[in-house]
Amino acid sequence: MMNKIRIAIDMDEVMADTIDKFIEVYQRDHQVDLALEQMHGKEFHELLPDKLNDSWRDYVNQPGFFRNLKVMAGSQQIIKGLCEKYDVYIVSAAMEFPNSLIDKYDWLREHFPYIHWKNIIFCGNKIVDVQIMIDDRIRNFTGFNGRKILFSSPHNFLITEYERVNTWTEVAGKLL
Amino acid sequence: MMNKIRIAIDMDEVMADTIDKFIEVYQRDHQVDLALEQMHGKEFHELLPDKLNDSWRDYVNQPGFFRNLKVMAGSQQIIKGLCEKYDVYIVSAAMEFPNSLIDKYDWLREHFPYIHWKNIIFCGNKIVDVQIMIDDRIRNFTGFNGRKILFSSPHNFLITEYERVNTWTEVAGKLL
Repeated sequence: MMNKIRIAIDMDEVMADTIDKFIEVYQRDHQVDLALEQMHGKEFHELLPDKLNDSWRDYVNQPGFFRNLKVMAGSQQIIKGLCEKYDVYIVSAAMEFPNSLIDKYDWLREHFPYIHWKNIIFCGNKIVDVQIMIDDRIRNFTGFNGRKILFSSPHNFLITEYERVNTWTEVAGKLL
Repeated sequence: MMNKIRIAIDMDEVMADTIDKFIEVYQRDHQVDLALEQMHGKEFHELLPDKLNDSWRDYVNQPGFFRNLKVMAGSQQIIKGLCEKYDVYIVSAAMEFPNSLIDKYDWLREHFPYIHWKNIIFCGNKIVDVQIMIDDRIRNFTGFNGRKILFSSPHNFLITEYERVNTWTEVAGKLL
């Protein structure tokens, strides 16, 4: 069997639109309008009123929160293409919020049915033996010596030290 | 920060006594006596009557199955010692049975509360970037170039090609 290059792909803000969900629930439950343009270089929760600042942790640990996230544009088709050329692993730092585990698994089964369970990893620190990592969090690149591709998300807009992609079409342009 | 050597430790049959649970449920539900001495070199389910041969898959996917497994003798104290000397990761191939994810997480929190969520990995293929792996399944050593320590379990008794430990006391003797 030929050894393919291994890629680790992050879920939140890369495959799944978590910020869109936060915008929705804060509007619905607190009548707070979070605007994407205000988030450049910031975590969305820095824009919340002080009394709500930590409330996002309650949301993400609610069963169901991750189950109905929107799929990031183009990800389904382009990851399918990546799976033909590479050994693709979905690697999510889900362990901080254990109620998210089954939701993330079910979400992957629904939207990315072609990804085998052998290629799904839920973890804390991403100590994965891969050659390429696509992630929106530079902390996940710590100690990783392979090719680091930073997927644009509002919170990382001001970071300039990494190879960056803004969309899945740009991922395809680089890797397919 | 000094870089510690990383160890990946498997859960089933290494930290948690899964076979003990199978013996219990087959006795309880089917009046089948599975004897450890008959398992040498075999999977326990090879000892089941034909009609029950695949039934173990239903058990392991039942919510709760992994929640109340017995802890393997000595593992709590010795893994605590390992955590002081090494960077210890608990790595379980749990993804085949997604209902086991939350049970395994809760079991770890109860019996190994000193293990941080950042050091827990639930996966399929164990593509972890570690230097030592302790596991009862040689398939998890595939493609791994570090030190492989085979933890004895009935199904692996006939395998001779690997460094072997029979107990957690033996692990301590080698690594502490």
